[in-house]
Amino acid sequence: MQTGMKRIVLAKRPEGAPTAENFRLESAPMPEPGPGEVLVRVLYLSLDPYMRGRMDDAKSYAQAVAVGGTMEGGCVAEVEVSNDSGLKPGDIVLGMFGWATHGVAEAKALRKIDPDIAPISTALGVLGMPGLTGWIGLNEYGRPKPGETLVVSAATGAVGSMVAQLGRIHGLRVVGVAGGAEKCAWAVDTLGLDACLDHRAAADAKALRQALEEACPDGVDIYYENVGGKTLEAVVPLMNVGGRIPVCGMIAWYNRGVLGPGQQPGGDRLPRVWRTILVKRLSVNGFIIFDHFHRYPEFAKEIGGYLRDGRISYRETVAEGLESAPEAFLAMLQGGNFGKQLVKVSEPGR
Amino acid sequence: MQTGMKRIVLAKRPEGAPTAENFRLESAPMPEPGPGEVLVRVLYLSLDPYMRGRMDDAKSYAQAVAVGGTMEGGCVAEVEVSNDSGLKPGDIVLGMFGWATHGVAEAKALRKIDPDIAPISTALGVLGMPGLTGWIGLNEYGRPKPGETLVVSAATGAVGSMVAQLGRIHGLRVVGVAGGAEKCAWAVDTLGLDACLDHRAAADAKALRQALEEACPDGVDIYYENVGGKTLEAVVPLMNVGGRIPVCGMIAWYNRGVLGPGQQPGGDRLPRVWRTILVKRLSVNGFIIFDHFHRYPEFAKEIGGYLRDGRISYRETVAEGLESAPEAFLAMLQGGNFGKQLVKVSEPGR
Repeated sequence: MQTGMKRIVLAKRPEGAPTAENFRLESAPMPEPGPGEVLVRVLYLSLDPYMRGRMDDAKSYAQAVAVGGTMEGGCVAEVEVSNDSGLKPGDIVLGMFGWATHGVAEAKALRKIDPDIAPISTALGVLGMPGLTGWIGLNEYGRPKPGETLVVSAATGAVGSMVAQLGRIHGLRVVGVAGGAEKCAWAVDTLGLDACLDHRAAADAKALRQALEEACPDGVDIYYENVGGKTLEAVVPLMNVGGRIPVCGMIAWYNRGVLGPGQQPGGDRLPRVWRTILVKRLSVNGFIIFDHFHRYPEFAKEIGGYLRDGRISYRETVAEGLESAPEAFLAMLQGGNFGKQLVKVSEPGR
Repeated sequence: MQTGMKRIVLAKRPEGAPTAENFRLESAPMPEPGPGEVLVRVLYLSLDPYMRGRMDDAKSYAQAVAVGGTMEGGCVAEVEVSNDSGLKPGDIVLGMFGWATHGVAEAKALRKIDPDIAPISTALGVLGMPGLTGWIGLNEYGRPKPGETLVVSAATGAVGSMVAQLGRIHGLRVVGVAGGAEKCAWAVDTLGLDACLDHRAAADAKALRQALEEACPDGVDIYYENVGGKTLEAVVPLMNVGGRIPVCGMIAWYNRGVLGPGQQPGGDRLPRVWRTILVKRLSVNGFIIFDHFHRYPEFAKEIGGYLRDGRISYRETVAEGLESAPEAFLAMLQGGNFGKQLVKVSEPGR
């Protein structure tokens, strides 16, 4: 058994786009599980866009990671030592162990994962928080009706690919927006989208809007918002009366720090978006998945079925070793991942 | 009987803020009512902020007024000639006769007004479209709960004063924003608001935000949006988790024409507002009263009762004569009205 653990801490807060210097790999003594607790070895760490927000000290729905503190994150882990009768060594669990090789937690706070249902990494993706996010956002705030048109940004990401495929299953016309020809081809060929537009091929919001207009001849009823920025600007004018915009994320704007003032080529875009909300009677709803975790069993049953019968596909990008997490995270913020971004921290069953 | 009528037409489309040159007073032959139609003499013309939108050629929820066409508007009018058994000369009706002294319409398209219930001008204000707008917007999209905090912009206007008083009746803490000390005093003393802030006394959005923060110690649960601009910018950061923003209007931005690009001192405000929608899980809903006219009987019964028992007050600014309509309208866009802006076009019962 190892005598120490490793973890990645927030070395300093980013100003604008983070770099490798915002992170630091540290060694630490192996933690000791107390009564009712378990010691786990992390197998997979999930990297998610929300983590960018945790690096800033701005008021948000969750507390910022402290400078010098371990970066937050969901993990699939294997129990090594258990002081609780509910878990035994070798069990696979889901927990928030952060960017670390090991962790200690109350056994009751962990969800046990059955490796026979699906690959254990899916507990961080299609069957985990990102999948649930897409399912809740589309169903609760998108309120889809067959025949409507859905536009999904970041359409091949962990959340977007769930939204897009559910849209297809619900009988919507589904148009994705993604970065690069390869992702767009996968979205159409494998996920079954009606069309997918490469935002990198569009010079500006106007060009993207024109491409979307062609792909959405009946306008847009639901815009599932993951990105903000140019895509938002392009989609909003195409919204139909009574349209819905579930606001799930805005990765294009995360690197503006606390989103302070900044001159954009297009000036102040708020009045135009606000006007469309009024004129088209849009329903714009922000949501955070923490408010909806109680729906997990219902979600897992439905999506588990779709996975078994092949109606839902997923894709993962896996970085090797905890030390690769910062680089993989920075790449993800630029769209370098393809599907769910994971870090493989250790092998199971050693 | 007169041999001709007068009307005010859109002389040319405004670029930015309209001026008197955008309007022209014209004479026209008196129209002849056909079978089933009535000829009316307009008593009161309603001036409303939405009319600014009709002057632009931008795509909106309603067609623009044509250049040379009569300006649109709701009117209370008296029947002079009737070719329908349902109405007789002397009857008072509500109809869209526009900025004109006379008009012809199908009798069936008009609502008869009982002058014994309330002053007939209230059919254009507290018991009319603006009142219904406030009632629907607050109840349907604000979803008020006792003890919550409501901020209303344009709080002494025809819509805002309805919203504010309903908020008070529903047991909310109600904080208004209005232009000038006199309006704010009336809002507190007569409408019964807990506080009312003068946006003209606030140098910028930051100063207004600080004043609002003091007036709303528990944050803001509902922001009833009539104005956009500085007030929106000030209120949004104060929204509580799960807050609601019914978007009813944005008069501060109407004079930007089609709301095209324009550099603001604060840069692009969209990312910050969008982030708050996400982080605070806001529900932002645009709505248009045309979608809700079927609720009128329910509204009239409830608000008629409040008017009779004195729980709801209202105020009117009345300009004299059709020719005064442009000036009164331009003043209203700058907040020059106090309560519902009307034009008295002729005396009843001549």
